[in-house]
Amino acid sequence: MSEAHAPLPVMLPPAELAVRVYYEDTDAGGVVFFPNYLKFFERARTEWLRSLGYEQSRMALDHQRIFVIRNLDMAYRKPARLDDLLTIRTLVTRVGRASIHFAQRALRGTELLAEGTIEVCCVDADSLKPAGLPANLRATLEFIQG
Amino acid sequence: MSEAHAPLPVMLPPAELAVRVYYEDTDAGGVVFFPNYLKFFERARTEWLRSLGYEQSRMALDHQRIFVIRNLDMAYRKPARLDDLLTIRTLVTRVGRASIHFAQRALRGTELLAEGTIEVCCVDADSLKPAGLPANLRATLEFIQG
Amino acid sequence: MSEAHAPLPVMLPPAELAVRVYYEDTDAGGVVFFPNYLKFFERARTEWLRSLGYEQSRMALDHQRIFVIRNLDMAYRKPARLDDLLTIRTLVTRVGRASIHFAQRALRGTELLAEGTIEVCCVDADSLKPAGLPANLRATLEFIQG
Amino acid sequence: MSEAHAPLPVMLPPAELAVRVYYEDTDAGGVVFFPNYLKFFERARTEWLRSLGYEQSRMALDHQRIFVIRNLDMAYRKPARLDDLLTIRTLVTRVGRASIHFAQRALRGTELLAEGTIEVCCVDADSLKPAGLPANLRATLEFIQG
Repeated sequence: MSEAHAPLPVMLPPAELAVRVYYEDTDAGGVVFFPNYLKFFERARTEWLRSLGYEQSRMALDHQRIFVIRNLDMAYRKPARLDDLLTIRTLVTRVGRASIHFAQRALRGTELLAEGTIEVCCVDADSLKPAGLPANLRATLEFIQG
Repeated sequence: MSEAHAPLPVMLPPAELAVRVYYEDTDAGGVVFFPNYLKFFERARTEWLRSLGYEQSRMALDHQRIFVIRNLDMAYRKPARLDDLLTIRTLVTRVGRASIHFAQRALRGTELLAEGTIEVCCVDADSLKPAGLPANLRATLEFIQG
Repeated sequence: MSEAHAPLPVMLPPAELAVRVYYEDTDAGGVVFFPNYLKFFERARTEWLRSLGYEQSRMALDHQRIFVIRNLDMAYRKPARLDDLLTIRTLVTRVGRASIHFAQRALRGTELLAEGTIEVCCVDADSLKPAGLPANLRATLEFIQG
Repeated sequence: MSEAHAPLPVMLPPAELAVRVYYEDTDAGGVVFFPNYLKFFERARTEWLRSLGYEQSRMALDHQRIFVIRNLDMAYRKPARLDDLLTIRTLVTRVGRASIHFAQRALRGTELLAEGTIEVCCVDADSLKPAGLPANLRATLEFIQG
């Protein structure tokens, strides 16, 4: 494995995305339906990627690569409710040859509501087999880390 | 337009699908989130099609055609709640060259909860332009109507 | 029926909400799953209401009233895709004693993708029976209309 | 802690639920959207509970208790696609005073597609604070374990 492909340690600054809770996000328990935090987290990862100049739809067209989830864990601390304004905080904890690891949190003000770690894998759009991150995305991630 | 392509009048028997209401279907109002009836209705149309020997995934692969929704209307009468067991009743009201019209109802026992009409259009999977129904599907629909 | 309760004609200015299309919104056809436009439209109605100073969670607590959908119709013109940035345009077309009628559109730039009309009914949160709009909301709607 | 409240070891037989993949479950990657496996798993836990005579809606009304998710982890092995017929296998791995731990798998035939462990906590429906499992549910779980 070349040095360019060595795993990168934690160092990107956390990104934040505001997410409003709508009826669509809640369930009959009166709180946010627990899988929906994974939607919020994905929106935040997507916006983080977009902030670096990458869109997944373009990546699929230009590089024939898509991101899939390989592993995740979640811990739920307190419920979010209708009309809450959440902050999703996203931290990249590791960049591998064909994967990015994230630690993400949903907060309401300073209250931690839910947190999780997500391993995203870059795969070929047809075969769904692991494929290295596009070179310019990897270069961008390395540049950001200085 | 050949006679084989003339619109077919209403005549297929109604099909029924049982649908259980889970947390995923509800919202903080304690009832089924209104767009979710459209999911229930689509499951019922899909199972009706499957009962005729057609799967949409195969239709996409073999005929390069997919179904899209062109128009719909819904009327909500009474709410469904968590754990309710619903019956979705599906009636084909018209078969066109490249479209099928459905009238569908969600019932709890004999109580009408919601009803709607949905116009489904058959399109080319790439261009999304209208394309005639696959010939064998059309033949099946005509055969059923006797 | 007092004059204050007479239906109001169309006159509120349209409100706009930007909505980004994420993976969660799409389906295997590669486009936005058709019921999800109803989620986008509800977000837009909610933000319109919030812009007038009303939150539905507070309305439930303070006035024991919630909004439910009574009728809707939708027409789908063109598909939206992953990463599209949509504009949801919301127009109030009628205000009744216990209902508000909306006309809504999803646009990508100037392209019309989908449009619909939605009748929202104000009901008692427990009985789900029609209940007049909260007086101050009605007063606000009348004030806006001049 | 009385003996009746001591954690129970693994011993309940696995339960199985068949789940069909519909358009609503998929995303633009052409596969099942990853958070939706959590919906499938919840349906399976709900049906397992129903098979023991418990409905969550009744439990909320009769015992003022609801189940919430405290922790979960998921591993995704292979993608499921439109029209796939999945089997969700559910195993109870531990019963605590106010919690039940599950190990769940999504299979297509004998192929493992996704698996996870989920810790479900029984809470008071209003305060959302942990509350012991209803006595008769606990008795049932103990009885099943012999």
